[in-house]
Amino acid sequence: MHEPGAGPARDRRPPVDGGRAVSVTSAQGFRAAGVAAGIKSSGNPDLALVVNDGPRTAAAGVFTRNKVKAAPVLWSEQVLTSGALRAVVLNSGGANACTGPEGFQVAHATAERAAELLGCGAVEVAICSTGLIGAQLPRDTVLAGVEKAHGALAAGADAGTAAAGAIMTTDTVAKQADAVSEAGWRVGGMTKGAGMIAPSMATMLSVLTTDALLDAPELDAALRAAVRVSFDRLDVDGSMSTNDTVLLLASGASGVRPDPAEFTAAVTDVCRDLARQMQADAEGVTKRITVRVTGAATEDEAVVVARTVARDSLVKTALFGSDANWGRIAAAVGYSDAAVDPDRLDITVNGVPLCVGGVAAGGRTSVDLSGADILVAVALGLGEGEGEILTTDLSHAYVEENSAYPS
Amino acid sequence: MHEPGAGPARDRRPPVDGGRAVSVTSAQGFRAAGVAAGIKSSGNPDLALVVNDGPRTAAAGVFTRNKVKAAPVLWSEQVLTSGALRAVVLNSGGANACTGPEGFQVAHATAERAAELLGCGAVEVAICSTGLIGAQLPRDTVLAGVEKAHGALAAGADAGTAAAGAIMTTDTVAKQADAVSEAGWRVGGMTKGAGMIAPSMATMLSVLTTDALLDAPELDAALRAAVRVSFDRLDVDGSMSTNDTVLLLASGASGVRPDPAEFTAAVTDVCRDLARQMQADAEGVTKRITVRVTGAATEDEAVVVARTVARDSLVKTALFGSDANWGRIAAAVGYSDAAVDPDRLDITVNGVPLCVGGVAAGGRTSVDLSGADILVAVALGLGEGEGEILTTDLSHAYVEENSAYPS
Repeated sequence: MHEPGAGPARDRRPPVDGGRAVSVTSAQGFRAAGVAAGIKSSGNPDLALVVNDGPRTAAAGVFTRNKVKAAPVLWSEQVLTSGALRAVVLNSGGANACTGPEGFQVAHATAERAAELLGCGAVEVAICSTGLIGAQLPRDTVLAGVEKAHGALAAGADAGTAAAGAIMTTDTVAKQADAVSEAGWRVGGMTKGAGMIAPSMATMLSVLTTDALLDAPELDAALRAAVRVSFDRLDVDGSMSTNDTVLLLASGASGVRPDPAEFTAAVTDVCRDLARQMQADAEGVTKRITVRVTGAATEDEAVVVARTVARDSLVKTALFGSDANWGRIAAAVGYSDAAVDPDRLDITVNGVPLCVGGVAAGGRTSVDLSGADILVAVALGLGEGEGEILTTDLSHAYVEENSAYPS
Repeated sequence: MHEPGAGPARDRRPPVDGGRAVSVTSAQGFRAAGVAAGIKSSGNPDLALVVNDGPRTAAAGVFTRNKVKAAPVLWSEQVLTSGALRAVVLNSGGANACTGPEGFQVAHATAERAAELLGCGAVEVAICSTGLIGAQLPRDTVLAGVEKAHGALAAGADAGTAAAGAIMTTDTVAKQADAVSEAGWRVGGMTKGAGMIAPSMATMLSVLTTDALLDAPELDAALRAAVRVSFDRLDVDGSMSTNDTVLLLASGASGVRPDPAEFTAAVTDVCRDLARQMQADAEGVTKRITVRVTGAATEDEAVVVARTVARDSLVKTALFGSDANWGRIAAAVGYSDAAVDPDRLDITVNGVPLCVGGVAAGGRTSVDLSGADILVAVALGLGEGEGEILTTDLSHAYVEENSAYPS
């Protein structure tokens, strides 16, 4: 797995793990491109195309649960009912959300243009968009961008990295990962997302690819299991986007039918790797915080408690200030919608027990929070349920970025 | 009603409304005091005493729903089962939360000392605390403070204002209000609270007093109805405290039995006034935001939608930046746990329609957000349910105050 550094990096070279190139084109049967179509006024890359050259085109997707869904989400949910995708067109520079019938027409036309170029049907092309909500995408610019991207399609890590770069918004680094099975198949993937990240994903778009041989229902089961414990466990600011999309495309090019459990584990590994990269590159991040809850009545309750702590603005600002303010953590545990016995509550921060049995254990000033990684461990003493949420601190830079950037 | 200014004020003189003094001692039959007991290392006032001299001592209370409850909350909930209170001791400088049996003993001893001085039982004395969670209160300092406050007890607005000043933490101004009935009775009150403010109240302590003649069940009904549409509709940062307490004490000194509806309305007015003062003095506030939702299926769903928008960090940072970013509002509406039809969604900010029928209506740059007050109006077009939440923006000052202040 590729492990990113904490600080903002701007290196867009393909990450390399043990000599392998790591990207959405890692698996056999995939080509990609990332181009500057002119949607972003900055002139930065803003349109990506990922193509599955087969021999199979099985696919699965997971989408935002937001009731206000962007046009590309409505389009892609619809076309994915067939369980097959030949290609995905992704753009940054505009979310195409709250854009009405006109916005849906642009998504449809984008799929049609890609389909014409690839010689397939529009219903085999998914669309993903990210950027400002409420503005119409410039239709002709997008369609010309699809043609430009089609002309730039290539196999290999450079093409995958170009695609990953073209979907960035406030991301400072392209995010890619992969996993390799000794059985001869791979899973690769890319993602974007730096803010508006919360349960059931984020303003995040992610495309995963594999050359394993699987049917759509098998892909769907693996993807849902993976997302549940990876992207769904990342919560930067509690906000859920109108555009969240994770797609998994399978080319079958390896000819190998994988062990289902091994395949699910590999997809989960890639999703977790990408989630960690999003955490490390989140808007305004200065601390990467893991909230780990054990001893809950159930796994779901553990996640509820972890998410409540991870979202608490007072906890997040205290950790930004390197203050091991466990009282705020205890308060957040107490108002979560989960069973809590205050007399059994233990809170440990970076290995130092601060609260034992619901009472101060001392040591608050001895906790070293000078580093970028913070582990908040909450033990409820009620059962065997455990779970964790990845989050970030609430910093001046978060406020700055989100009060200035009209996303 | 006393209407506070937007900016932080440090005027602790009693507010005067139409020549009346407005305080927790406005109603007949009450004395109060606020003293510097030495709990706060700053030497600022930190202990308040409110005494009901009768002839009646009926009382009601509403407490935090946090499962981690401070010792004074556990004590006060217990003594209030009798429906009578002779006095309330309040301290700032320490929450006495997560302090175990030792903390409960301090609360108990505080009530006993006040009871000895007043010639009543300890079960007639409620205790309220606010400040850092997890530290033991200095028992002897608190008990000496109770004696000092007892010696300073007085009727009149100056005494009430001294009490209101002694419960301040990060508050910059003492918060008081009252209401007067032509029938001859009054309701007065004070509150504190500037952060950790959320549903089912906040790190807020509030004592309300009346000289109307009511029984405890009548007080309880009026108080719960009032809190539901006032303090419970203030949500600064989504965090719920371990210490929230609102008490209502009735002396019956006016000899007037009020009309129940008029009394409930008066208590509601006072609570709303105090809630607005807390909003105006919230930590780091630069904008006072009202999120008003209409057209929901039910009132509860309207409040759910309003609260989700009010808590969204991206909405709050955008409004801090005077950016009418309605797309973020639409996204928050969409992920709320309420029925939403995206095609019927209207969003209006400070009177300018920005989204109509789920689609951009233009005008985003024409919204004047330069003032301190912002009204976000969301119309769902589904039913008759409506409700509003008061909140504030998420500013640099909020981050600064909460990363530096170990509350």
